[in-house]
Amino acid sequence: MKLIDGNQIATDIIAELKAEVSTISGRKPCIALIRVGEDPASVSYVRKKEKTAAEIGIKSQIILPPITISHEELAALIEEQNNDDTVDGILIQSPMPKQINELLIFRGISPDKDVDGLGTMNIGKIAQDDETGFISCTPAGIMALLARSDVDLKGKHVVVIGRSLLVGKPVALLALQKKAGANGTVTVCHSGTSNLPEIARHADVLIAAIGRPEFVTKDMVKPGAVIIDVGINRVDDDTKKRGYRLAGDVDFSAVSEIASQITPVPGGVGPMTVAMLMKNTVKAYHQRNAS
Amino acid sequence: MKLIDGNQIATDIIAELKAEVSTISGRKPCIALIRVGEDPASVSYVRKKEKTAAEIGIKSQIILPPITISHEELAALIEEQNNDDTVDGILIQSPMPKQINELLIFRGISPDKDVDGLGTMNIGKIAQDDETGFISCTPAGIMALLARSDVDLKGKHVVVIGRSLLVGKPVALLALQKKAGANGTVTVCHSGTSNLPEIARHADVLIAAIGRPEFVTKDMVKPGAVIIDVGINRVDDDTKKRGYRLAGDVDFSAVSEIASQITPVPGGVGPMTVAMLMKNTVKAYHQRNAS
Repeated sequence: MKLIDGNQIATDIIAELKAEVSTISGRKPCIALIRVGEDPASVSYVRKKEKTAAEIGIKSQIILPPITISHEELAALIEEQNNDDTVDGILIQSPMPKQINELLIFRGISPDKDVDGLGTMNIGKIAQDDETGFISCTPAGIMALLARSDVDLKGKHVVVIGRSLLVGKPVALLALQKKAGANGTVTVCHSGTSNLPEIARHADVLIAAIGRPEFVTKDMVKPGAVIIDVGINRVDDDTKKRGYRLAGDVDFSAVSEIASQITPVPGGVGPMTVAMLMKNTVKAYHQRNAS
Repeated sequence: MKLIDGNQIATDIIAELKAEVSTISGRKPCIALIRVGEDPASVSYVRKKEKTAAEIGIKSQIILPPITISHEELAALIEEQNNDDTVDGILIQSPMPKQINELLIFRGISPDKDVDGLGTMNIGKIAQDDETGFISCTPAGIMALLARSDVDLKGKHVVVIGRSLLVGKPVALLALQKKAGANGTVTVCHSGTSNLPEIARHADVLIAAIGRPEFVTKDMVKPGAVIIDVGINRVDDDTKKRGYRLAGDVDFSAVSEIASQITPVPGGVGPMTVAMLMKNTVKAYHQRNAS
């Protein structure tokens, strides 16, 4: 069994981006990071993005509207960033407060700056195999983990557990694409699937994104399968100081005995997301400069 | 075995639309039908759309640019239709000549008038389960055939053969949606799938859209499965006056012996496409009037 080390792969990508950005003379790429309110997890995520951007040499512009901002005011704020020529990418941290229609806010980001890839146009571009699009950070991270672990999906059966817009659907469309590394046969299962363990056992590559701790047990896995665990779940654990431990969607200790390659949680898909956001920002910079 | 009669179901939908449109006082829905050049198949398709629109009471506006039109001129022509308030839907007949970038032309249709559903935004809306979107006519027709044949995909395994943007990918996303009639478990196979017959045999609902005559044989079908045949292939046949016969992607005579329900070719999915185009046009009319 080989561990797929997301920390190491993310570090490599960040180093590559740093080298690339260092060759840019003149204006450097810039990402606008918008965080509504003071949710502690959001504060920490945005800080991590700001820090990684700085490490690479990407400028970041932090915008902190109050939690009371109206939908229209937030839409107007995004329109300002759309029209600001010095901004290449726009990220709005989720979750947003209840008065905000997230779908419309994401759709309102100019598609050429939508580096988080959650706008409707960029989701459509995945289905169209359109390489100008931005793939959202978790599915992009999964594909990068597979590529850098020499997993070619061609002729393989990829089973995705979970049909979310953030992970399951885009990663299924990516695995289906007619491009090197992809060309997989893809099944999407979910909470309503009647014979999920049997279907999972057919997987050459199993992507678990259902949000249930240790849902994928050893009996659901074909020996030699590649396992990508997208879940990050809190499980009560009195032996831990904070009262919980983090668990993925896969029973790692048992499944790792038979998998050929597997991502750990934490340290698998998680660290990839910020790296892919930065990669998208550099791509947006180049595409905007070329057009 | 029950035959799924696409001609009858399309006739029913057209009659329902006619009744609906007859209640509209004032301006009636209007579709712009754009056909580039004089390709005989395109001439016949556009004529059929015009005739069906007239039958329902939808106004149509036929626009016939020459085969030599440039990409920029066609884009400008579409922009005129986008800006014409009396036009609710815009259809551009495929195929277009080589100098035209079809992807960008479809993307250039205003999403609220994209009744053929081939623009990037409307494809993205399918993934988002966004009911304001327009679903392209073939996948929409397949879902309507299933719904009107009392096939509920919930808990069922749907296997789609073919991953095209026109059929395979959108119908897979539709079958996955969290809405009544959908909620299927979905597998997409294609020419690069290594064990396609085995996967097909797991299907409760099998959708064949691979473009190969009689590709799906009896041994690839689970007894009792529902079969949707999207293929329309010409097969040489000297006994026919025109020298060929039309064949679907399914070996109808053998597969119909074990299927619970099956579409014929012709007379299955084919007649549904024009009906769904008209349904989308009436929907566009209502959405544009409401906004």
